[in-house]
Amino acid sequence: MTETVHNWEDHGYLATYIKKNGSFANLRIHPHGLVLVDLQSYNDHIKGREEVDQLLNKVEERMKELFHGNIKRVKRLPAILRGGVIDRYWPTADGRLVEYDIDEVVYDEDSPFQNIKILHSKQFGNILILSGDVNLAESDLAYTKAIMGSGKEDYTGKEVLILGGGDGGILYEIVKLKPKMVTMVEIDQMVIDGCKKYMRKTCGDVLDNLKGECYQVLIEDCIPVLKRYAKEGRMFDYVINDLTAVPISTSPEEDSTWEFLRLILDLSMKVLKQDGKYFTQGNCINLTDALTLYEEQLSRLYCPVEFSKETVCVPSYMELWVFYTIWKKQTDI
Amino acid sequence: MTETVHNWEDHGYLATYIKKNGSFANLRIHPHGLVLVDLQSYNDHIKGREEVDQLLNKVEERMKELFHGNIKRVKRLPAILRGGVIDRYWPTADGRLVEYDIDEVVYDEDSPFQNIKILHSKQFGNILILSGDVNLAESDLAYTKAIMGSGKEDYTGKEVLILGGGDGGILYEIVKLKPKMVTMVEIDQMVIDGCKKYMRKTCGDVLDNLKGECYQVLIEDCIPVLKRYAKEGRMFDYVINDLTAVPISTSPEEDSTWEFLRLILDLSMKVLKQDGKYFTQGNCINLTDALTLYEEQLSRLYCPVEFSKETVCVPSYMELWVFYTIWKKQTDI
Repeated sequence: MTETVHNWEDHGYLATYIKKNGSFANLRIHPHGLVLVDLQSYNDHIKGREEVDQLLNKVEERMKELFHGNIKRVKRLPAILRGGVIDRYWPTADGRLVEYDIDEVVYDEDSPFQNIKILHSKQFGNILILSGDVNLAESDLAYTKAIMGSGKEDYTGKEVLILGGGDGGILYEIVKLKPKMVTMVEIDQMVIDGCKKYMRKTCGDVLDNLKGECYQVLIEDCIPVLKRYAKEGRMFDYVINDLTAVPISTSPEEDSTWEFLRLILDLSMKVLKQDGKYFTQGNCINLTDALTLYEEQLSRLYCPVEFSKETVCVPSYMELWVFYTIWKKQTDI
Repeated sequence: MTETVHNWEDHGYLATYIKKNGSFANLRIHPHGLVLVDLQSYNDHIKGREEVDQLLNKVEERMKELFHGNIKRVKRLPAILRGGVIDRYWPTADGRLVEYDIDEVVYDEDSPFQNIKILHSKQFGNILILSGDVNLAESDLAYTKAIMGSGKEDYTGKEVLILGGGDGGILYEIVKLKPKMVTMVEIDQMVIDGCKKYMRKTCGDVLDNLKGECYQVLIEDCIPVLKRYAKEGRMFDYVINDLTAVPISTSPEEDSTWEFLRLILDLSMKVLKQDGKYFTQGNCINLTDALTLYEEQLSRLYCPVEFSKETVCVPSYMELWVFYTIWKKQTDI
């Protein structure tokens, strides 16, 4: 073992211990008493982990002896696994580090629009991850229910428009409720192809055909479709926007994402019946600035609208999520 | 900046860069192409983080140039914050690293039985953490509902026994349902004191007095209480065990935790009416061995029992949790 020690004048010291097998440890001692030990090794199989645990137990015991039990707090964090085929770290929308119980890469492809991953989680089933964002897991019926109005709507005989929704979850659940016609507009055929194969707990068989008795799936950008429908005067009882999360950006002047969001909202209101409802997911509850900015957009649409919101626990998200219901303000006659 | 480089014969190399302000970075390059960069600094305020992000952006750009864009995958993880007053890392029961949005230590005391922490989470409200285990947050009505039978039981006029439950959540919810009498047996007065002050979304005002119109709270070890009740022939319609998680140990021979669990179960069955129900939380769904061992205990009780289980998403747990319903097997007459 090689030892290198660096002494700062005012900042304590750093010792680095290097083993012949390629592993090493940093021992960082701060003058006010904080001691950090980081151990890095390669090829971490279970046996390696047990060895590391035993080593750390010894270090802990020895430290306690040295300080005569005068240690205020000891905390050992689970090892972080990097560089393997399986990536278990998918930070939350509010930027927290969370480790998923991913044990298999089921699907990993780049479409013309995004990177599409479907990873298997022991507890959540398959998880769809689009360009690094956890979209939906097979455990997440709570998401689909929330974005459909939390069971308070009657879809029987209704005209429904779904924007996005390529995982098929919303389509699958609404089709069960005997709507008149559901039109889903999803830009990315590869999302549909991946999900119909690997997210069947979410979409059932509804994506096996792009057309059914009471639904059709259009593989198109929703903007021109909305424009066409608006021009034709086609109207819907429900518009469900399952496109993208509210942008994390809190500086709307700096990018056009909010403009895009407002365009979608305006066009959606144009094809929404006067007593219709628009459902969408908002953002994680902690990104209050982004939520406020989204709500500000709602006051800037071509027609006056009102909205309500609901906070829902979506199992695979590891953070609470806000969903919106938006409707046209009823004017007194 | 000081640079130290270590070359292994077969294991690549490690460069350590040390700055005058006490921060340092490790650059670990493995021969097969994995590059790990770890940056450690002290006094991490927002400005420090922005600087770090900019630095890492530069490193990433430079690496991409050096490798002519021939990099398969780049992943940057959120910083881990250690040594501060607030500890944001409370690993799941299945050992995964998860970061909570803790922003305040509300309560932190050692009772004669355990360490009691109540930490404030931006999204979950106050969280009760007993000896390092996340017990319940103010967001976790789903836990309380699940351990009460998921809304399928009629508590009106019933005799209920709660084992543990010091956060008051179960007591508060059942008292609303007009039971005949609820007896709660909690060993730790300090848990009650902490929760009645800081977990009021969970317990309401029910812990303000240890006796109410239809409930009483006994500050006692539940084992002698159960023995007394069994001896007296006192019977309950519902016994709700909210004591402790199923031990993680999968070697029941090696410790007596399973014996303890079985003792509680046996005594509970003795005070449970023939058509009564016993509810308890089990464990996280991923600890399948521990769940199986628990179910094996159920076949070893003094009387034959049957059980069902349900998997529930408890918001603050960040993992799915299994709850059990156990009842006495009805014998044909």
